[in-house]
Parts: sequence; structure tokens; C-alpha cells
Amino acid sequence: MKSVETLAIKYQPGKELLILDQTLLPEKIKWIPVSQPEDMYSIIKGLKVRGANLIGISAAFSLADYALRESSEIKIQQAGEKLKSARPTAIHLFSAVDRILKQTTATHRLETALQIYEEDKKACEQIAQKAKNLIHSGDQILTYCNAGSLATGGEGTSLGVIKQAHKDKKKIHVYVCETRPVNQGSRLTFWELQKEQIPCTLICDNMAAGLMAQKKVNTVFLGADRISNGGDVANKTGTLSLAVISRHFQVPFYVVAPESAFDRQCLSGQDIPIEQRNAEEISPFWADKGSIYNPSFDVTPASLITGIITEKGIFKPKSG
Amino acid sequence: MKSVETLAIKYQPGKELLILDQTLLPEKIKWIPVSQPEDMYSIIKGLKVRGANLIGISAAFSLADYALRESSEIKIQQAGEKLKSARPTAIHLFSAVDRILKQTTATHRLETALQIYEEDKKACEQIAQKAKNLIHSGDQILTYCNAGSLATGGEGTSLGVIKQAHKDKKKIHVYVCETRPVNQGSRLTFWELQKEQIPCTLICDNMAAGLMAQKKVNTVFLGADRISNGGDVANKTGTLSLAVISRHFQVPFYVVAPESAFDRQCLSGQDIPIEQRNAEEISPFWADKGSIYNPSFDVTPASLITGIITEKGIFKPKSG
Repeated sequence: MKSVETLAIKYQPGKELLILDQTLLPEKIKWIPVSQPEDMYSIIKGLKVRGANLIGISAAFSLADYALRESSEIKIQQAGEKLKSARPTAIHLFSAVDRILKQTTATHRLETALQIYEEDKKACEQIAQKAKNLIHSGDQILTYCNAGSLATGGEGTSLGVIKQAHKDKKKIHVYVCETRPVNQGSRLTFWELQKEQIPCTLICDNMAAGLMAQKKVNTVFLGADRISNGGDVANKTGTLSLAVISRHFQVPFYVVAPESAFDRQCLSGQDIPIEQRNAEEISPFWADKGSIYNPSFDVTPASLITGIITEKGIFKPKSG
Repeated sequence: MKSVETLAIKYQPGKELLILDQTLLPEKIKWIPVSQPEDMYSIIKGLKVRGANLIGISAAFSLADYALRESSEIKIQQAGEKLKSARPTAIHLFSAVDRILKQTTATHRLETALQIYEEDKKACEQIAQKAKNLIHSGDQILTYCNAGSLATGGEGTSLGVIKQAHKDKKKIHVYVCETRPVNQGSRLTFWELQKEQIPCTLICDNMAAGLMAQKKVNTVFLGADRISNGGDVANKTGTLSLAVISRHFQVPFYVVAPESAFDRQCLSGQDIPIEQRNAEEISPFWADKGSIYNPSFDVTPASLITGIITEKGIFKPKSG
């Protein structure tokens, strides 16, 4: 079986599974060895691996690898269910684990895990091609959170589109929102862009409106954790705010995600469960002394979205 | 001469001037002795004292106190000019210093400084009365940055209005935006509200839209650093974003400030100088490795403001 190596994950089937600890970036590069799905559960819950697609891939590798060594089908099913409970919003986690559990042999499980990874990597490539005509030389692009190599099996969804424009020698400048409270923008996206030497500027989330008022942003690209059948998008908290100000300043607002982000059972964004996270993420000082509200995601209605870009093409969602 | 004692400043004329170091809140209460206007310049520049009105009051006390000991008029004028250069956006700093410099005797200078403080304190009280009918029991109020006792000579402008509603036994809940990058919301406003036992919840700046979409916010009150003649408002960076999302979700958006915040010479918000601050405030890690944009303020056009509340009343600005 072939081995896998990306910016975020290293896997030699039956031998070693390593996950890059994203909570330590950009200061430190530390790889965590994963021997049990239990470990992976904690790694996902602690945001050491994050990004909807990458969570699914990581869980799939961990579960398939476990099945190579564990003969009890009950234990494998239990491990899968536990993994699925690590985070409630990203749909990729549930679908990836279910695809592994549906297989009946260890070999098929491993093949399926590798397939989930390959599909996601390929989806990133196809998305980058589909979006090509949306970015032009001179564009000033705003992005949010991280939907790059640290969130997918490939170059990323929204960040993959941006990297492709740079590869195509288009002159672009990227504004990166820090993305409070966990700072995936300043810690992860800014790190990925610096690595690729793509011109970029870091801002606080609340500064995007000021930039747009000065006409310094002409397009927005960001990812999605789950999309309703009608095109409502659950993504990192703060996405809705950017969608509203983009509409106000008439800046095109694109959501970039693989088809696997769609939850066709979900008819409205209001039905997507939103994870509440620890108060410590916002303020260690007040965490035990005051009330803190910390939803990990918000829901942007389809009506505020210019287009959703998947590996199948670009479409304008109809319903909100 | 009477002495002054507030949450942020202690002054015994000719004896002692102490400034609360706001950069250390809420963890630590530390008072800094000020012996020279030079000290006050650094204190203002380092944000140890902040808030448009309080900056003006602090500079006035420092300069008037210096004039009690310094006989060289040239030195006093130079000290005043230096103080005025500490921060470029707040208008109170220039007008307060100019009022002190215009006086010709040390006694008149001291009287003027005390008068600037008393006027601001009184303006806060009058504003709280004028705004009374805008807050009702059951209201869920969103506020931003700090426009309380740590920003004025009294109970505050926007925070004064909120405190008055609580004193009047109205049942209110306040959502406090952390206010990146310096966190005046989570460090200062949340501290003031906890002190007064006013029910409040801390959020990240980017979460306000999600709350409004869930109809959990029904009014916004925040301060101003400078207001153009037509009613465009320069205030802490992120104010514009809140104004746009408030308009989208049809939430009333009030700016609260004393008349002294108006710059009648300034015809448009575009003419207000916006201070750029250090990259370290946003990210110590990237400060010397990447491009960071850190405007301290943004400008909200009058057209997005429901009302400006001053000690003279509530008015709807006409021009944008």
C-alpha cells in the first residue's frame, strides 16, 4: 500500500500515522504519533487537527489503521462512533467514518481511507481549475480561517484557488483575517501563504469592512464546513459578518468546498448543529468568572452568497 | 483646590497625579505617578490611558500641573505641542491642550483643567438622562470597545447610558465585543460591567452578526473618537463592521459622545486622520516577518447611524 505525506499528515499503512499539531503553529512543528482512534478523538477535539475535510481524512486513516490490528468488529464500530462524536458540525467526519465502517474487511477499509484522501486531493485540484476565471491579475482577495493544505488532503479549497492564481503568475494580494478566537487565519493561512511567497497582509477580523470601504478588497474566497441542500453555509464563526459586509460594499463573496460538504438531507442552514466551544478559547482570565459565548460556526444564508465553487462547477444558490 | 478621584485617574493639584495603567487590566491594578508632561506623552502613546475624553482630561491635568512649577512659557507651550502629537485621531486631546495653553496664568490653567474634567463628567450624566427612553426592560444591548469610566471623566458615554438603565432597575443584558487587537472590550468594559454586576456576556467581534441573525441583540450603543460636522463617526476599528451588520439585521445603531467629540471644521469623515498602530498589537510572531495592517479607527458614515446622542439630545445625522 502506498504511503501518504502532506503538510498536515503522514501515513504509512500499518506502520505509522503522524498528525501535525496545528495548535502549535506557526511557532513550532511537532508531529503527534497516533496509535488508537481514542488518540485521534482527542486530537480532533483539541483542534490539533482541524478543517472539515482533513478531520474526515484523519479519522478515516486512524479507524482503518486500527481495523488492521483489531479483530473485534464491535470494537471497530464503537471506535467509529466515538470518532464521529468528536465534533458536531463538519459533515466530512460522519461520512468518512461511515464509509470505513460500511466495509467488511480490513483491506477494503484501508483502501477506502486512501480513497477518501485521494478524492479530496483531486477535488481540490478540480476546484482550482473551475475557479480559474474568477481571479484576475491585480485582484485583492480577502480570505478567512484556513481552507488550505492544513484543512484538506490537497492544496486546499479556497486557499487552493488562491494558490492556483499565484501559480498562474497572476499578481494578487491576499488579506488574511486573523479569525478569532483560535486564530486559524493568523497562525495557519498566513503561514501557508508565507511558505508559498504569496503577497499577503494580516488584519483583525473587524478590519475587513474598513478595507472594503476603501475599495481595497475586490473579492472574498472562503471555505465551508457544511452546506445545506439549498446552499446555506455553515463555516467558521465570523463568516456571516463578512458575507453581510461584502454584500453592503458590493464585493463578490465566494464559498469554496468539495461536493462532500453538502448535506442533502439538510433543507435549511437553521438545521445545522452549531458546536459551542470552551470559554478559555476567548478569554482565559474571564473563563471561570463571567459569561462567554463561543459558537465555533455561524450560518450564512444562500441569499448572501455570490457563488459556491465545487469540483463540479460554480453555482449560485437559490434559496436562503 | 479640590482633588479628583475616578476609576482611572487621581489628582491632587500641585501634589500628585496618578494614572491607572489600563494595559494591565483586568489582571492588575497599578497606578503610575506622572511628574512631567513627557511621562504623560508616553502613557498616552502606550495606551496606558485611552478613551478620547479621558486622554484629553489626563493631558490637561498633566500640563496644568506642570505649569504650576514651570515658569518658562516657551517650555509650557512646547510640552503642550508634544502632548498633542501623542495620538492623531481623538479631537479631545487637541482641544483640551489648546484650552490650557490659551490661559495665561498657572491658576487659570489649573482651573481650566478641572473645568474640562467637570464638563466631561457632567456631559456623561446629561447624556445618560437624554438616552433614558431608548433602553427598555428586556433589552439585549451590544457594545464595543470601552466608553465607560475608563474612557471619560464620569460614568462613560455609551457605557454611562447602559449603567443608567441598570440603576433604573431595567432588566438588561449586555453583549461585549472583545475589540481586537487591544481588547478594550474584554479587558475594560467587561471589567466595568462585572464591577457593577450588570448581566453581560463576552463575545469575539466576529460573532455579533450571528447573534443578530438569532435576534439576540436589539440595540447597539458605542462611543466616538471624533465626529464630522455631518455626523460621520471615527471610532475604534470594527465600528463600521457593526454598523453595516446592524443595518442589515435592522438593529438600531446609536453613537454616544459628548458635543466635544464634534469636529465642526471637518466636513466629511474621510478627512479624519486615522492612526496606524504597531504590528505587534495584532501578532508579535509575524510583526517582523510579514505585512500587518493595523488602523486604530475606522469611519462610519452618518447614513448607517440611527442616532447620535450627546448632552444636548438625540439627533439623526443627515449627510454621509
